[in-house]
Amino acid sequence: MSKYHHIKQIAYEANMQLPKLGLVLFTFGNVSTADRELGVFAIKPSGVPYKDLTPEKMVIVNFDGEVIEGTLRPSSDTLTHAVLYKHWEAINGIVHTHSTYATAWAQSQRDIPIFGTTHADHLTTDVPCAPPMSDELIEGNYEYQTGFQILNHFQENGLDYKEVEMILVGSHAPFTWGKTADKAVYNSAVLEAVAQMAYLTEQINPSAPRLKDALVNKHYQRKHGPDSYYGQ
Amino acid sequence: MSKYHHIKQIAYEANMQLPKLGLVLFTFGNVSTADRELGVFAIKPSGVPYKDLTPEKMVIVNFDGEVIEGTLRPSSDTLTHAVLYKHWEAINGIVHTHSTYATAWAQSQRDIPIFGTTHADHLTTDVPCAPPMSDELIEGNYEYQTGFQILNHFQENGLDYKEVEMILVGSHAPFTWGKTADKAVYNSAVLEAVAQMAYLTEQINPSAPRLKDALVNKHYQRKHGPDSYYGQ
Amino acid sequence: MSKYHHIKQIAYEANMQLPKLGLVLFTFGNVSTADRELGVFAIKPSGVPYKDLTPEKMVIVNFDGEVIEGTLRPSSDTLTHAVLYKHWEAINGIVHTHSTYATAWAQSQRDIPIFGTTHADHLTTDVPCAPPMSDELIEGNYEYQTGFQILNHFQENGLDYKEVEMILVGSHAPFTWGKTADKAVYNSAVLEAVAQMAYLTEQINPSAPRLKDALVNKHYQRKHGPDSYYGQ
Amino acid sequence: MSKYHHIKQIAYEANMQLPKLGLVLFTFGNVSTADRELGVFAIKPSGVPYKDLTPEKMVIVNFDGEVIEGTLRPSSDTLTHAVLYKHWEAINGIVHTHSTYATAWAQSQRDIPIFGTTHADHLTTDVPCAPPMSDELIEGNYEYQTGFQILNHFQENGLDYKEVEMILVGSHAPFTWGKTADKAVYNSAVLEAVAQMAYLTEQINPSAPRLKDALVNKHYQRKHGPDSYYGQ
Repeated sequence: MSKYHHIKQIAYEANMQLPKLGLVLFTFGNVSTADRELGVFAIKPSGVPYKDLTPEKMVIVNFDGEVIEGTLRPSSDTLTHAVLYKHWEAINGIVHTHSTYATAWAQSQRDIPIFGTTHADHLTTDVPCAPPMSDELIEGNYEYQTGFQILNHFQENGLDYKEVEMILVGSHAPFTWGKTADKAVYNSAVLEAVAQMAYLTEQINPSAPRLKDALVNKHYQRKHGPDSYYGQ
Repeated sequence: MSKYHHIKQIAYEANMQLPKLGLVLFTFGNVSTADRELGVFAIKPSGVPYKDLTPEKMVIVNFDGEVIEGTLRPSSDTLTHAVLYKHWEAINGIVHTHSTYATAWAQSQRDIPIFGTTHADHLTTDVPCAPPMSDELIEGNYEYQTGFQILNHFQENGLDYKEVEMILVGSHAPFTWGKTADKAVYNSAVLEAVAQMAYLTEQINPSAPRLKDALVNKHYQRKHGPDSYYGQ
Repeated sequence: MSKYHHIKQIAYEANMQLPKLGLVLFTFGNVSTADRELGVFAIKPSGVPYKDLTPEKMVIVNFDGEVIEGTLRPSSDTLTHAVLYKHWEAINGIVHTHSTYATAWAQSQRDIPIFGTTHADHLTTDVPCAPPMSDELIEGNYEYQTGFQILNHFQENGLDYKEVEMILVGSHAPFTWGKTADKAVYNSAVLEAVAQMAYLTEQINPSAPRLKDALVNKHYQRKHGPDSYYGQ
Repeated sequence: MSKYHHIKQIAYEANMQLPKLGLVLFTFGNVSTADRELGVFAIKPSGVPYKDLTPEKMVIVNFDGEVIEGTLRPSSDTLTHAVLYKHWEAINGIVHTHSTYATAWAQSQRDIPIFGTTHADHLTTDVPCAPPMSDELIEGNYEYQTGFQILNHFQENGLDYKEVEMILVGSHAPFTWGKTADKAVYNSAVLEAVAQMAYLTEQINPSAPRLKDALVNKHYQRKHGPDSYYGQ
């Protein structure tokens, strides 16, 4: 058995969550999960329908984007995953989807305003939307540069990837991440729900106020702070 | 067997209705049910996925919010439930969800206008939306104060909790209640449907009129008045 | 066996289509079917959940709204059905739902404009919306008057119930009908689809033109005219 | 066994995908697939519910629209399929649906703007919307002329049917095509997703910019160009 079997299994199960959660049409999404000690991640093969996936079909790639094991070509977004794993050492799972509402916000090139506690339970800022890249970068190593586009947007805006585990790439679609692949998948579903609610909120009240700071802090801290009291 | 088994079973079954009715994502909701003679209620444990719930995992809490039986931590919203049970003696079930459309209205900080008979079949007023609390109360005993926020909004607006069995908590999400846990769950689904229809109504006709009083009264009375003739 | 068994069976099966087609929440809908020779119709009992329905529970009512057979109370909308059967002799099935998009148009008190061929495949006019009744009529025999509200709106607007098999009752919800209960259920699903598409059409293009007359006629005739060539 | 059995089987399976993908209500859609050597295509019979379809019920028609084999009447849209097969020699599958969002755009008589990479992964232009035909053509051989309406709109706008595999027929609904029936069905589902996202994008940001050319080209080329690297 491959010494990478454990992450292939995790990546397989996490990928299979995407269609169950209604986050993908056909093959429009991918999940990867990393093993930091082995210095690699397992990722979905490119363009393979979810119903045909097996753990064995996952591709093992290192943090420079080089295929280490596997006969199939990895996801076309593999280099974006590699860049994020290489620079953000605390994450072990990454998800990319074209989920409907999050993608619509990405296409709108707007941050998703923080309107309520559903949002604040997960992050204390608007969901950031990185602008499209320059033509030069697009025409170069596109997926590699997409990783840096994300890194740079976080740096320029003073965002912490351990606290904000999601981004919209402008004109494109969302990426989410987390300490595990499961958490990254969870974040993708949360993002889609938050994106739909924010869209509806603006339709119902175009001047809806952002969530007040006291509620932002309260809800985030009860789930994430040192005195958190949500869950077991 | 626990002397609270009967309400654990009811609370379990009522909680399991939420995902079936499409009202919750992951663990974003909870149902409780009270036994007035025993002076306690059974409530969902915090953060436990619905697929892992069992009747035995329900937590027994008294009306001051103290855990009476159970090894798991109760829902983070437990104190809100406790306050409502303590002050509103005729209710035996409470539901909290972040259902999509009702939460969008809550985030919009608007009452849901009564536009049609679907709404009037269940209540004769707009669905009230309580404003967000003051920063001082948020930073204090937040969930406890959320209960009072609801009580106060009803009192200030002359609403009767026996007739209006639902509220939106501004910037947050809905709470519903009823004589039984089943009725409270039913009310959550009705609220979500009414919230979606009201949203669409305003999109289709921004100057749509509120339901005329004669229809408000007729539809409510045929389901709820002394001469009601709906159902068996 | 009851001599009405055949229509109880038809009414049962037609009622059970409503939740499958996503047209009802809980008990918010009902189907009836008539036997013209026996001068009666079978209708859903009031407030009974779909999962508890059986053919035997259907209630037999005559065209004056009097219960002929059955131990349960018939749908609260029974008198509306009775009035329509009594005056429109060619129909044998009636459906009432509170389906989401059709009800939103009813609450908007607007006719649904004929924007495309999906609509024209089924009727050549806008879907009519009857205005709410006068207070006097509402406070009188409400469901009976709702029947006349529908009849009068058709008469005043020169509509033919054999060609236009659906109406929105303003502030309330849709009714549909047809030569059979199956056709009436079919019409309810078509109406909901047409209502959703018309809503989206106006959102995408607020000045979207109505369907040109040549297309209205072509599509209706290919399904309904003497030279129709749709179906087998 | 019919010498057309292979395309009947393909057409059957492709038709059965439409309800699974949520693209049709009742019988509002049809798929055909051609055998170029035999000079015919297999198409769904008109008005037959999907649950009653079998491969044997598919109708064999030549590229002039004449029935070659089969006892059922072919889809009322058969002549449109025939015209496209006759003039566009590289296609072997055609799909027509009234899917909700694509049809709403068709009714709006607007091209679907290219807002994001989900769109650019499949075509480099807006999704074209052909205007409704003149009254004279509608009243003539309508379905036959619909085929020419599509051909002419492509020619007049310099579009290549091998690159743009979809169109909206104004006031009507979408057609898609491809090298195989499976690809045509895939294109219908992609179109519906793109149509929904574009609708939401404009709602969220009425001045959302079209996708920049560099991204249009990059995404299309990575899936379709000589150096494509998507899939296996």
